[in-house]
Amino acid sequence: MELTIEQLAKKLGGSLVGPGRAVVNAVGPLGSAKPTDVTFYNNEKHREALGTSQAAAVIVSTPVEALDKPQIVVGDVNAALIEALCLFAPPLKGPTPGVDPSAKLGRSVVLGQGVSVGANVVMGDNVRIGDGTMIGPGCSIGENSTVGSHSRLDANVVVYHNCEIGNHVIIHANSTIGATGFGYSFIDGAHRLVPHNGGVVIEDYVELGANCCVDRAKFGNTIVGAGTKIDNLVQVAHNVVIGKCCLVAALAGISGSCRVGDGVVIAGQVGMADNLEIGSGATLTAKAGVMNHVAPGEVVMGIPALEYSKARRVVVSTMNLPKLVEKVKALSKRIEQLEAAENDKK
Amino acid sequence: MELTIEQLAKKLGGSLVGPGRAVVNAVGPLGSAKPTDVTFYNNEKHREALGTSQAAAVIVSTPVEALDKPQIVVGDVNAALIEALCLFAPPLKGPTPGVDPSAKLGRSVVLGQGVSVGANVVMGDNVRIGDGTMIGPGCSIGENSTVGSHSRLDANVVVYHNCEIGNHVIIHANSTIGATGFGYSFIDGAHRLVPHNGGVVIEDYVELGANCCVDRAKFGNTIVGAGTKIDNLVQVAHNVVIGKCCLVAALAGISGSCRVGDGVVIAGQVGMADNLEIGSGATLTAKAGVMNHVAPGEVVMGIPALEYSKARRVVVSTMNLPKLVEKVKALSKRIEQLEAAENDKK
Amino acid sequence: MELTIEQLAKKLGGSLVGPGRAVVNAVGPLGSAKPTDVTFYNNEKHREALGTSQAAAVIVSTPVEALDKPQIVVGDVNAALIEALCLFAPPLKGPTPGVDPSAKLGRSVVLGQGVSVGANVVMGDNVRIGDGTMIGPGCSIGENSTVGSHSRLDANVVVYHNCEIGNHVIIHANSTIGATGFGYSFIDGAHRLVPHNGGVVIEDYVELGANCCVDRAKFGNTIVGAGTKIDNLVQVAHNVVIGKCCLVAALAGISGSCRVGDGVVIAGQVGMADNLEIGSGATLTAKAGVMNHVAPGEVVMGIPALEYSKARRVVVSTMNLPKLVEKVKALSKRIEQLEAAENDKK
Repeated sequence: MELTIEQLAKKLGGSLVGPGRAVVNAVGPLGSAKPTDVTFYNNEKHREALGTSQAAAVIVSTPVEALDKPQIVVGDVNAALIEALCLFAPPLKGPTPGVDPSAKLGRSVVLGQGVSVGANVVMGDNVRIGDGTMIGPGCSIGENSTVGSHSRLDANVVVYHNCEIGNHVIIHANSTIGATGFGYSFIDGAHRLVPHNGGVVIEDYVELGANCCVDRAKFGNTIVGAGTKIDNLVQVAHNVVIGKCCLVAALAGISGSCRVGDGVVIAGQVGMADNLEIGSGATLTAKAGVMNHVAPGEVVMGIPALEYSKARRVVVSTMNLPKLVEKVKALSKRIEQLEAAENDKK
Repeated sequence: MELTIEQLAKKLGGSLVGPGRAVVNAVGPLGSAKPTDVTFYNNEKHREALGTSQAAAVIVSTPVEALDKPQIVVGDVNAALIEALCLFAPPLKGPTPGVDPSAKLGRSVVLGQGVSVGANVVMGDNVRIGDGTMIGPGCSIGENSTVGSHSRLDANVVVYHNCEIGNHVIIHANSTIGATGFGYSFIDGAHRLVPHNGGVVIEDYVELGANCCVDRAKFGNTIVGAGTKIDNLVQVAHNVVIGKCCLVAALAGISGSCRVGDGVVIAGQVGMADNLEIGSGATLTAKAGVMNHVAPGEVVMGIPALEYSKARRVVVSTMNLPKLVEKVKALSKRIEQLEAAENDKK
Repeated sequence: MELTIEQLAKKLGGSLVGPGRAVVNAVGPLGSAKPTDVTFYNNEKHREALGTSQAAAVIVSTPVEALDKPQIVVGDVNAALIEALCLFAPPLKGPTPGVDPSAKLGRSVVLGQGVSVGANVVMGDNVRIGDGTMIGPGCSIGENSTVGSHSRLDANVVVYHNCEIGNHVIIHANSTIGATGFGYSFIDGAHRLVPHNGGVVIEDYVELGANCCVDRAKFGNTIVGAGTKIDNLVQVAHNVVIGKCCLVAALAGISGSCRVGDGVVIAGQVGMADNLEIGSGATLTAKAGVMNHVAPGEVVMGIPALEYSKARRVVVSTMNLPKLVEKVKALSKRIEQLEAAENDKK
């Protein structure tokens, strides 16, 4: 796709400051944008990079003074950036609509309109797929499971039986939904698996990364709430309930039966004990080891995780601990001297 | 499946206290059980929840006094719970016995009786599969590898060549058994892969989660001992030997050539240096970074991991470190005053 | 393969010390080598084990005195070990050359000479595969992506569209290359995915473990530099640039837009904040939580990561913190006594 800057400004609903004749065909960041790229500017600390950027034009929220470059002024740079990236997305053929002849569908499978089922897909009995949904090659969907409309399962995703995946959901390649959770009872000298009669519910607009695991529940359902976005290699254990619009970064692990509120941010490599309650709006910073409930809006850090300001004091004082050791040594000497002086007097 | 409480008590080998006519069709936990669920009670701290539970009946180990609900008294609540969950498991058709026509089997493949081989399975030459074993769709099993009897490989599991998987083993979807380990020698300015001539042995009754990796050995075998259960997204490196009946939780990593005893518990996100000896019955608590051998029965915690009581003292004193800093500051002032007094005397 | 010790010495370009008639057919480590194994010795701390090893012969770099065993003296034990392991590798049929009839190739796919395409492979339009490359069963390669010559993608690897994989690359089973990165903008109360118009470049001689994820870039490419080796279950986020000849161990996570130099060692379960610069030759020790840029050659440790010697002092003093607490308590008492003495005088 090629557009003049003027055309692009119109499509983004923005107003143009400067000449609009030049043609752009891609989006690039300030530092590496080419002369045929449009770039974007949403952070004053990049003002210098903006000055030297080779981009043909820049998307801004307020006109930048003394800038020798066409500017497209929009209400929300991030939203305009998403639109521009969609406009200039590399052209792809995408998946072919219809069911690939190599796909193997069980009995009573129901497919909506415009569904695409890739090569070598396997679906059990009673699977239902909503309108416009794309099931990538090599996916396996267990009996009685459903995928809503306008969703996308990429290659080799495995969904076990009795799982419910909503509308506008994206699940990236090699992820596993509905494997049995890690629940054992030690009986007669052996770990015996507790049957997992429950399922998984992935609500609308959830996006799951590649090679993720969401385990099925023992009872009821493991739930990932609407609009929640999960990165790669994340573990969501059995009976976890994640609220709406959360963010979960890579390699995080959410243990069994944890209840995570809405809008929670779980950073990379976070782990947590099971059965915890994480309040809405909480933030668990990277690598936190969460051992206790977290209040709504609270930010926690560290292993074990503490409230942020407390954790910060602990971290700072730990970093300075070698100095403290020296200080105590010095104090000890001064006390010895005082004691010696005191003894002299006796 | 529907049963009267009386019928259920009989099936569980329990004795009934209270009326047995009502019908139940599922198991539910105390808090969310429906009026057609049987629930279970094995922890006094849930006594209040038991009182208000809507469940039709409860499985207990000793009769609970003053409870207005039928009770099924059994010897072991956990064992009865497993039985009840099996009884009320959602009915599934399960995999079809026989070999799916799309499966591609190498030469001299030997399949036991009642084996189910799913769609698009690929097996190399000389693969042998024991009686009653189910190979899920999209699995790939390399030449000379064997899977024992009554085992289950879920969809898209990959087993490389020369691996040996025992009886009654479960491997969840998207796991990888027998990839080459991470072993390199730096020669002439490049990392050169050390060939891994060894294999993997997964013993009987092992259960492996989804998206796990068990690497093949350089020499001999990487071994996962009988009855060991491994959660999702776990890394077992080359030449590791894990004993019997261990538990390994999600996102843990067991480094090359570690020898883990029997009955070891490795919690979530644990990591360890290579070549370590972890004694039988040891526990590595969540997120531990184990740098040294661990004695049998020992519990270790922290990064670097220390013996539990020692680690606890370190953690507690670290949490209180900001107070210690204040205390030292105050002591320092008092010493200054003492010194000033001392100087005045001179 | 069976060889006399003499034949083996010749093949390894080594000189033989001792008799050469005995036959060996495998390589084994000192402790567990059988009488038909050749073993290797490259570390003096194993001198005792060498004395008791059952191996028929040993590969050494300098002749060991008073050793009752044939020795093959070579310039580089590690290099000779690799050669010996190749010689004695278990014989495998390996993948069949040619395209399996069940593979599904898009339009304008170009395959080099001697390519092997396994069962159920799916390739989009315009995919190009270089000479001698093997694509394992169940792999999916998106449109416009390329794989160079003499590379190997093991079973069920997924490569998305517009990715570029070099020559002599190995990607182990169930890994995912080119999934969309974890980039969202919060707009009108929802996390909206930022389209990822970029791709992934995996350079020559890279080896990637099983169940790894390398996300595609928003702009430009996520790059893994030539000769870099990555273990299992590793996350490489969008727009990361990894240099040449790095090592990245299992369960590590490299966050968005990090720039990692050449020869960097990233140990297991390391995590890092996004947009960091890790200098060439740096080492990030196991479980490090890297929050800041790391200078070339620097070794960092801990959460948050500090320069090694500094981190070591912090760790050691933290381990001794309970003692420091006691010490401060004792000092406090001595100050009290001094103060009491001082008060007595007033």
